[in-house]
Amino acid sequence: MKLLRVGTAGAERPALLDAQGTLRDLSGLVDDIDGALLADDEALGRIRAAGAAGELPVLDATGLRVGPPVGRIGKVVCIGLNYHDHARETGSAAPAEPVVFFKAADTVVGPYDTVLVPRGSTKTDWEVELAVVVGRTARYLESAEEGLAHVAGYAVAHDVSEREFQMDRGGTWDKGKNCETFNPLGPWLVTADEVPDPQALGLRLWVNGEPKQDGTTADQIFPVGEVVRYVSQFMVLHPGDVINTGTPAGVAFGQPEPKPYLRAGDVVELEIDGLGRQRQELKPA
Amino acid sequence: MKLLRVGTAGAERPALLDAQGTLRDLSGLVDDIDGALLADDEALGRIRAAGAAGELPVLDATGLRVGPPVGRIGKVVCIGLNYHDHARETGSAAPAEPVVFFKAADTVVGPYDTVLVPRGSTKTDWEVELAVVVGRTARYLESAEEGLAHVAGYAVAHDVSEREFQMDRGGTWDKGKNCETFNPLGPWLVTADEVPDPQALGLRLWVNGEPKQDGTTADQIFPVGEVVRYVSQFMVLHPGDVINTGTPAGVAFGQPEPKPYLRAGDVVELEIDGLGRQRQELKPA
Repeated sequence: MKLLRVGTAGAERPALLDAQGTLRDLSGLVDDIDGALLADDEALGRIRAAGAAGELPVLDATGLRVGPPVGRIGKVVCIGLNYHDHARETGSAAPAEPVVFFKAADTVVGPYDTVLVPRGSTKTDWEVELAVVVGRTARYLESAEEGLAHVAGYAVAHDVSEREFQMDRGGTWDKGKNCETFNPLGPWLVTADEVPDPQALGLRLWVNGEPKQDGTTADQIFPVGEVVRYVSQFMVLHPGDVINTGTPAGVAFGQPEPKPYLRAGDVVELEIDGLGRQRQELKPA
Repeated sequence: MKLLRVGTAGAERPALLDAQGTLRDLSGLVDDIDGALLADDEALGRIRAAGAAGELPVLDATGLRVGPPVGRIGKVVCIGLNYHDHARETGSAAPAEPVVFFKAADTVVGPYDTVLVPRGSTKTDWEVELAVVVGRTARYLESAEEGLAHVAGYAVAHDVSEREFQMDRGGTWDKGKNCETFNPLGPWLVTADEVPDPQALGLRLWVNGEPKQDGTTADQIFPVGEVVRYVSQFMVLHPGDVINTGTPAGVAFGQPEPKPYLRAGDVVELEIDGLGRQRQELKPA
């Protein structure tokens, strides 16, 4: 299923994009698309059955904003340097174990929302990423297979990054990863049953129409199931938590000088096979 | 005012510890002590007035668990190496600007709850910290005075840390800061009006009754108001967000070998002048 949330920020209603591409209202069936729903197989089954039976009311999409496809996100765990080609372009060795950092849940916005260039920023960068949404509480998992079994679904994430804040201002990467609007997510949460192989997805990103990233999750150093297993050794993952699993080569930071960092007025578009497409215009904060 | 939340985890009710040390039930007046309440001067005024008028029902504290004093925490921003004496003991220079890392809100537990030593941990460490709870949305603040004006109140925080996960496993510090139960908070949220000078608070910590940390917020490299101003340049702070403002000298990591890291069975107690005292027993995860 393709689940999504439409409406003004903070007041989105749950919806389903059905197999025919028609938007269906889920608000008569569930309150929201959140961790509680994703952990509730029975409620997900009711949505599935109602969708298949054609019982869900059509929702007029005209003029409706699309929000992030998951509400009440607890935390966003991010994996750094998780593609061979991206590690190479940053001049880093492939990490021996996953690099972990955080984005706060309040950085998450909708897939077509404005992205703000932070005040004082000269190095705002793009990163298309496969986001994993957790569906079951994960704690000290023992295998990558178990890791995959805890995934509710997948979405496109834009891990917007300010490289000076991230790398030249002391401390951890978090300083350049948590600016306002820095995590567009969506348009859809595609449930895991419809993504038979998360390691065979093409990811692409354009800036002002020019192709910048064109990778595949086959190039991930640590595949999705292993990432979930690994992270669960260091923290508890709860339903509705998100993991951004890293970006392939082609970010501005990896280009020769002068590096083409983002400025207000730029337009970024990004997509992942089967998970939909995002588009953001950049504006000053 | 001293605000707190009592009851089983996830179902705490709001309470007030009045000037006479009597626990008063706030659940007839407000739903919870959370960001929405802390941003609502009128609701806080009603609590204050009802408390002063002796109108709040007494709450029988017998056998009641004390939870974290703030519910629905959005994010926990942490400041590293923020005391001169602690920077020295770790062999680090005083940072030129605040070091920022994150704890996920789901690491927050009550002040007397069990702390779990993570599986595979050999370097679980203690850190007593002054926690700042945000009361107003802070975005690009211009002065430390403005920073202080965005603080709703203060609490004791225990920034439990696993040093091997933090420093020897690649990536950022976050890996050693987000284990289950790693952020005891409370017992109270003391509103900012009752903490006339947050830079004049003694902080102390004991392990199995032995004094380990004995510092003062006067030794902070970046004082509270400046920390809030600084962080607001990199991210938006929302009501109910928490900032752990760093720890003074005396952590296990700063001791000569063999360093006295925590083990299951150890008991940690910590306190800050005017903000109350915590006590945790350690158990295996």
